[in-house]
Amino acid sequence: MRILAIDSSGLAASAAWMEDDTLLGEFTINYKKTHSQTLLPMMDELTEMLGIDVSTADAVAVSKGPGSFTGLRIGSATAKGIGLALNKPLIEVPTVDALACNLYDTEGLVVPMMDARRSQVYTGIYEFRNHRLTVLMEQTACTTEELADRINHMQEKKAVLLGDGVPVYLDQMKQLLHIDFSVAPAHLNRQRAGAVAWLGMQYLREGKTVPSYAHHPDYLRKPQAEREKEAAGVKVDKISEASERLRPADYGRNDSYE
Amino acid sequence: MRILAIDSSGLAASAAWMEDDTLLGEFTINYKKTHSQTLLPMMDELTEMLGIDVSTADAVAVSKGPGSFTGLRIGSATAKGIGLALNKPLIEVPTVDALACNLYDTEGLVVPMMDARRSQVYTGIYEFRNHRLTVLMEQTACTTEELADRINHMQEKKAVLLGDGVPVYLDQMKQLLHIDFSVAPAHLNRQRAGAVAWLGMQYLREGKTVPSYAHHPDYLRKPQAEREKEAAGVKVDKISEASERLRPADYGRNDSYE
Repeated sequence: MRILAIDSSGLAASAAWMEDDTLLGEFTINYKKTHSQTLLPMMDELTEMLGIDVSTADAVAVSKGPGSFTGLRIGSATAKGIGLALNKPLIEVPTVDALACNLYDTEGLVVPMMDARRSQVYTGIYEFRNHRLTVLMEQTACTTEELADRINHMQEKKAVLLGDGVPVYLDQMKQLLHIDFSVAPAHLNRQRAGAVAWLGMQYLREGKTVPSYAHHPDYLRKPQAEREKEAAGVKVDKISEASERLRPADYGRNDSYE
Repeated sequence: MRILAIDSSGLAASAAWMEDDTLLGEFTINYKKTHSQTLLPMMDELTEMLGIDVSTADAVAVSKGPGSFTGLRIGSATAKGIGLALNKPLIEVPTVDALACNLYDTEGLVVPMMDARRSQVYTGIYEFRNHRLTVLMEQTACTTEELADRINHMQEKKAVLLGDGVPVYLDQMKQLLHIDFSVAPAHLNRQRAGAVAWLGMQYLREGKTVPSYAHHPDYLRKPQAEREKEAAGVKVDKISEASERLRPADYGRNDSYE
């Protein structure tokens, strides 16, 4: 089975092709946050270099969130576009779970931290048991204090931190954590489509796919615009959210598509 | 500090840029063994996508071997070419050490296995101690029996295998190994320029560089042509080897450059 994988949830934009248990190729850019300019050319270049016909993909795996709202939308829109055009299912991979997969069989806890602004991180707590990723705390948005408290109360006394939230909150974590921890090396520290592909392949084998029209990103928090409106006492309508969940039968009835 | 890293030692060809502790970008193709066609376009594409001027590299890190003879020559020639053109030093990174770095802080032994043909693997035995890669058996060419014997006699009773030699010799290793072991997942299983860059950055900080003219690949074994000549009783001359070690002062005196 062959899948195309996409991750544009953070600063890094990444695309990969995987066939069964082989990563055929991967292209990652972690420099300038212009995913709308980089993601498609990267996919194109990668696919052409591999000599692969996109229509041979059995599914498209996408990092579904949490992450940068704009980044997630670009990734989801790209995946949905390919899925709809080629009639392929999508595989929704939790962003933080995929990030944790960078550290296979690591001794102790794996703690991805993505900078979620507003003094929060998108995070989760993981461990490899019998060579499989085990979720100890599902991906969520919380403060570093809340995260450190959860880690300090766990039995395991070693951890590896990774992600773009680490440089932002490292000093705080040094104060807060009472266990031995280190920071993942640069080449294993950020989102990779290769990891999304690997988890995605497991999901595909388990039949965990969604029709492309049914996919929507998992933001975990409300967008800033909605938060600001709510803070100002304005009732937020749900048009934008509803439109993302539209099924094909609804298409003709929605004027916003005109 | 900024480095460009190259690995074309095996089936995968990979290029990456790293700046201090950040992997800026990486492009890997692990599909068709045509490194001479893929490596430079990949580097070009990656560098252009990042908007980097190649002359801003402080050094070029190259996977120095062991590995495919042709692959190593392409990687070395490319690195030397850039180094000579831009007057930048090279960082020689042992291929198997870099491969082991895919599995940061893994519990137990890390055992890369590259298919070296002739019933041998290019391998080594590693462990992460205090979050640093520790070499327990230096990279070498040996049979799976010799490798398994070394592993079975070690104190550590867990291991992760990785590399393109694993699918070739997995059944043998299952028979030979008396410890609990697993195989690294697809996205961490092959050479990555990102890992070469990470090790390379450590070497650069320690001042471990060589002038580009002084670099030559580390084959660990003699090329097939030399082995065949020796087996047939023909004395092998050393011209090809000597030419790789030429210093600039020698250039004018060597007719083979004409």
